[in-house]
Amino acid sequence: MSAPNEFLNQLADSAPRHLEELMEWLRIPSVSSDSSRLIEVKQAATWVADKLQQAGLEVEILPTQGHPMVFAQSPEIEGAPVVLVYGHYDVQPVEPLDEWVSGPFEPTIRDGNIYARGATDDKGQVLTHVQSVCDWLASGNSLPLQIKFLIEGEEEVGSENLERMLPELSEKLACDCVVISDSGQYSDGQPAITYGLRGIATYELTVAGPSQDLHSGSFGGAVMNPAIALCQMLGTMVDGEGRVQLPGYYDKVQDLSDEERRQWSELPQDDPQFALAIGVESLFGEKGYTTDERRWARPTFDVNGLTSGHQGEGVKTIIPASATAKFSFRLVPDQDPCKVTASVEQHLKNHSPPGVRWTLKPDHGAPGMLASTDSRFVHAANRAIESAFGVLPVLIREGGSIPIVTRFQEVLGCDCLLLGWGLSDDNAHSPNEKFRVEDYHRGIRASAILWDEIGKLN
Amino acid sequence: MSAPNEFLNQLADSAPRHLEELMEWLRIPSVSSDSSRLIEVKQAATWVADKLQQAGLEVEILPTQGHPMVFAQSPEIEGAPVVLVYGHYDVQPVEPLDEWVSGPFEPTIRDGNIYARGATDDKGQVLTHVQSVCDWLASGNSLPLQIKFLIEGEEEVGSENLERMLPELSEKLACDCVVISDSGQYSDGQPAITYGLRGIATYELTVAGPSQDLHSGSFGGAVMNPAIALCQMLGTMVDGEGRVQLPGYYDKVQDLSDEERRQWSELPQDDPQFALAIGVESLFGEKGYTTDERRWARPTFDVNGLTSGHQGEGVKTIIPASATAKFSFRLVPDQDPCKVTASVEQHLKNHSPPGVRWTLKPDHGAPGMLASTDSRFVHAANRAIESAFGVLPVLIREGGSIPIVTRFQEVLGCDCLLLGWGLSDDNAHSPNEKFRVEDYHRGIRASAILWDEIGKLN
Repeated sequence: MSAPNEFLNQLADSAPRHLEELMEWLRIPSVSSDSSRLIEVKQAATWVADKLQQAGLEVEILPTQGHPMVFAQSPEIEGAPVVLVYGHYDVQPVEPLDEWVSGPFEPTIRDGNIYARGATDDKGQVLTHVQSVCDWLASGNSLPLQIKFLIEGEEEVGSENLERMLPELSEKLACDCVVISDSGQYSDGQPAITYGLRGIATYELTVAGPSQDLHSGSFGGAVMNPAIALCQMLGTMVDGEGRVQLPGYYDKVQDLSDEERRQWSELPQDDPQFALAIGVESLFGEKGYTTDERRWARPTFDVNGLTSGHQGEGVKTIIPASATAKFSFRLVPDQDPCKVTASVEQHLKNHSPPGVRWTLKPDHGAPGMLASTDSRFVHAANRAIESAFGVLPVLIREGGSIPIVTRFQEVLGCDCLLLGWGLSDDNAHSPNEKFRVEDYHRGIRASAILWDEIGKLN
Repeated sequence: MSAPNEFLNQLADSAPRHLEELMEWLRIPSVSSDSSRLIEVKQAATWVADKLQQAGLEVEILPTQGHPMVFAQSPEIEGAPVVLVYGHYDVQPVEPLDEWVSGPFEPTIRDGNIYARGATDDKGQVLTHVQSVCDWLASGNSLPLQIKFLIEGEEEVGSENLERMLPELSEKLACDCVVISDSGQYSDGQPAITYGLRGIATYELTVAGPSQDLHSGSFGGAVMNPAIALCQMLGTMVDGEGRVQLPGYYDKVQDLSDEERRQWSELPQDDPQFALAIGVESLFGEKGYTTDERRWARPTFDVNGLTSGHQGEGVKTIIPASATAKFSFRLVPDQDPCKVTASVEQHLKNHSPPGVRWTLKPDHGAPGMLASTDSRFVHAANRAIESAFGVLPVLIREGGSIPIVTRFQEVLGCDCLLLGWGLSDDNAHSPNEKFRVEDYHRGIRASAILWDEIGKLN
């Protein structure tokens, strides 16, 4: 009943088609935060639903108050494990557009990479599991486990609808383990299993002053400048080494264990190389922690965008009527996003000058996540990845957030397996997002072997 | 030889034509900072040059490295005073465009005001002097003084070319008094003579971090965020009451005299009404000074614009590659703009975090200005304004900057007469800039009487 070697050998022959299909999906500009892209977002859902349906899975498009979710499942097998593959078909915005070498929705292969928005985050990665299952079934073999897919369209805007609907979907989504490929390898050629993610809390802050822009000559000195107020309110959020200054922010932060720090210290970390790769002269952050520790297990504050007043060419000496910032925190276990929001409000109250009004709009929030590092699924994944990549994966955490993962753990009571095929320089959320073609194909192979290994667990 | 009453009476009959001509000039979008408007800027110069030429003045278009200047003069009169009218035909940018009730270059009359970019700053105001001279000559009378005009096209971008060329133009521009109408009345119905202006120093600061936007999950905690760095560098420029924190910033600031403070205290100041008019709940600024004192005689810091990262709809959790601010200082006598630049650089050095690079680009700078409050020209203007407005002007300073005025004093050794016909709510530099039609016409009348009064001085 299991995947014969013959089927695995055929996977390589299908590589051109696998790639062509990925490019087809990447051409659909499914930017979930862009309300002018409703149709395209739906198209991206339909594309993957059709593919799963054609392979013989039972497919449903689940409507939400926002973008639809695609659910699919293979037949239940008495006594066999149930795996839920979770991923997302929506993508980040593409601005600044002029920094893309090729169009974000014109997938292009250069130097062994496929460049497009969504290439690694997450269309390319989730498609590895779709391909392995579709090809398995097309080979005439039956699966040794039940596989379910949940591919949603709102991951990049916080997965709020999925989160809200999760309890009522819990029976449909019931599984032993959630498999997610929306993260990365540790380094080029060194795959990883990610057992921890940071949480997130995002906000938009608007500081409003005069009812319209004022001449800074006639009015400068008489009124508070909203852009200065914004800078002061944000600039005081962190100290000189990046430690967040919100009241109680570190109270619940789960410390790194000595064992984790020891394990991570064995990973090949190269700060100067890391700095060079991202174009900075020096790295920056909390004293007493290595770069990986800061990225994976320490909470942060980042300003994501600033807008105020005159942004065009030349000089315009105004006091802007308002100033807006988008900002976010990455959280770690056991920080509570709601408590962070309360702390932000308190901080802004303490640091907002008189003469301006401010509005804080929380967007989405999710706590950090930790999974088992020693489950039977981790062992199965170890074998699958070693077989496909030729090297055992290392156990790491990641700094990014997949807000729904903690909720899966809580509501479905399942294990979690985060198998990232991407690389840290894949430019997720940035211009020129890419995914290495070889990693896409190795991901498909590892996925197929994973189903085989999990099938053997019972 | 002087202006007969008959001519002054005719001015009222010409009011419709005066207004029509102003609208014609306002329709030309002469935004000097916008490099795509070169042709329109030139058109605005030609428009006023043609008008002066048709009136019989000797006109020259003086080319510069930037936008041209219009020079015109009436014949020299042995022994009579020489007055130079200075103004500008260039205008501020118009953004945010969607806040204009009618198009910025579609002059529209509503509630007794003419709305358009440049209505008060400065086309409407300088045109009062052009109209009075042209009509005077058209009435068949000869002028009792020599009048020169210098109407430039770079006031809104710092008058750098005029400033550089001033020494070589000093013979051409030689005069006893410069007359400038680019300021305001003290309040509705209370005209003013402005004897002091603030100086200015403008800058663009760019803070650069990673070579491109980074995923704040994967990289947050590892690198300095350029937008946070910018906020911290700017937020520390002023303290909680708006006092500028640059080293030595107040060292040379000329204190207000007791006599000035006494005189200004007699002006009808109404802080709650002032706050209401500009849409803020409370005014803001240095303790120990009245609102007018802060606006006219105290130096300031203002952020004019902020740009960084994601500015569109929704959430994009990035560490932006860079962040940019435009900011400016209003200076008072005897602050030196060059010393301010050095202090800004020192402050930024002291407050820039590691891991980012920054570039400070000074744009234009000019010191503040003080003129005589007791010259024969002030007395002549008192009489002219009382006659046209029905009330004696008050003596005030203004918070805005006309960078070239100090240079006129230095290079031409002349008196200065700043006669503002505008109002403080005219929205100079803002959307819905306006000029009251009645003030335009009273300005023309006051201007004509001024020539008469100055002609009588000898």
